[in-house]
Amino acid sequence: MNISIIGIGLIGGSLAITLKENGFAQRIIGVDVSRENLDKAIRRRLIDEDMSLEDAVAASDIIVLSTPVDVMLELLPKLLDLVDRQVIMDVGSTKSNLLQAVSDHPKRGRLVATHPMAGTEYSGPEAAIPGLFDGKCTVLVDAEKSDIDALERVQELYLSIPMKMVRLDSHSHDVHTAYVSHISHISSFALALTVLAKEKDEDRIFELASGGFSSTVRLAKSSPDMWAPIFRQNRDNLLDVLDEHINQLARFRSLLIKKDFATFYELMKEANQIKKIIK
Amino acid sequence: MNISIIGIGLIGGSLAITLKENGFAQRIIGVDVSRENLDKAIRRRLIDEDMSLEDAVAASDIIVLSTPVDVMLELLPKLLDLVDRQVIMDVGSTKSNLLQAVSDHPKRGRLVATHPMAGTEYSGPEAAIPGLFDGKCTVLVDAEKSDIDALERVQELYLSIPMKMVRLDSHSHDVHTAYVSHISHISSFALALTVLAKEKDEDRIFELASGGFSSTVRLAKSSPDMWAPIFRQNRDNLLDVLDEHINQLARFRSLLIKKDFATFYELMKEANQIKKIIK
Repeated sequence: MNISIIGIGLIGGSLAITLKENGFAQRIIGVDVSRENLDKAIRRRLIDEDMSLEDAVAASDIIVLSTPVDVMLELLPKLLDLVDRQVIMDVGSTKSNLLQAVSDHPKRGRLVATHPMAGTEYSGPEAAIPGLFDGKCTVLVDAEKSDIDALERVQELYLSIPMKMVRLDSHSHDVHTAYVSHISHISSFALALTVLAKEKDEDRIFELASGGFSSTVRLAKSSPDMWAPIFRQNRDNLLDVLDEHINQLARFRSLLIKKDFATFYELMKEANQIKKIIK
Repeated sequence: MNISIIGIGLIGGSLAITLKENGFAQRIIGVDVSRENLDKAIRRRLIDEDMSLEDAVAASDIIVLSTPVDVMLELLPKLLDLVDRQVIMDVGSTKSNLLQAVSDHPKRGRLVATHPMAGTEYSGPEAAIPGLFDGKCTVLVDAEKSDIDALERVQELYLSIPMKMVRLDSHSHDVHTAYVSHISHISSFALALTVLAKEKDEDRIFELASGGFSSTVRLAKSSPDMWAPIFRQNRDNLLDVLDEHINQLARFRSLLIKKDFATFYELMKEANQIKKIIK
């Protein structure tokens, strides 16, 4: 199987490593606007060669679209224009806008919209790692809009890793990811700004920061180029969850002001229930 | 060296493992209000034996106080009454209240106030692990109030692990830990409540939650018995940092409402500077 990866970064590059390693892909073709990224990807052996978008599409069985989501909005209609028997698989973090934009495209069926729920706070080809997706979950979005052969091919791809698969419609996908992914990033960015604003003594943070702080703040290292477009496209759902999050913090604040530590304790007990869900 | 650990949980138990393993302690005596915890600690070989508080103090060279911080407030004056040549070392997360409470005690010099900056979201003797403190930083608080021999003995203890040491006065300690530890916990508790409130479908969270979500929310599993007293004792500093954190989130909220993603992007870039501080 020849696979093109459009956008050789953390996700595209890690997929490239995995699919080459497990034999699902015979040849990996890289496409990227950045010549520097392509050179890095070749040096790191993430890709076998690089091509223009048009040549890559013509030479491929599967085209993986793994650019920032704003670029996907532009590229996806063009890609659908170009394909014939090939399958396009996007791996974007937001879906409603993207799928709306191509809903009337005559070749919509060649697209399989997916969202592998895995990542790190790093970006670029240098961030690509083996094993990133092993055993994780991927979402197949509006799967009934895809041609059956295209969907099957993409399922084979994810099974080869292997990843678990669940199906969601695009609206539900965007709501759920606002809860379980996007708000974590906002919270982390805000926490980093809080500490940077309050704590002028960076050496002290460095010395004192424990594992707990690092783990809550690590997503604040994430790339604004990747995440600003995600927040833009999922703005309404994110606002909804962000309002709830600010309310929860305001509740803790009010209890601190009133020195009502009994209720504070109860809320923490309630929050502990996340244990049942997150290992 | 005979060492008593008063409060055999995550911190006390992990210290017990480490100090026995590296030979600093010949004998570890456990003291705990919970018979169940003592039995677990003996079965897990965290302690060699258990004793009453009085007997343990009499039999020890160093007494480590590792209970929740509200219990420390009660116990520490009694311990100081009991000691003679022995050294008391507390490992609490807040210091101003505690040190205020014993500032006029005639044996104040026998106390060395410390805060090893390490932990996990788990608690109890079953949470004790080897290696928890290796290479981390511990804070020696108001060290000039301790007798020189007591301070030296505690420094030897931490060097044996080994841990790095920094010195802070109690006020600065409480301000800094509000920034780099306590606010992370509040943020995580609030995030867990947000998701539990918004996402009724727990199976979905389980399926979709990625590493990013788990890492920002993991502190929400922390013990309310440990943390409610910390928040109570560090209330003023915490309120200050919490206000700033809510302001930062409100700033993101307002930019989302205005769809000002250019400024949103700039704020994320600014937050990225946490990279310089946190590895």
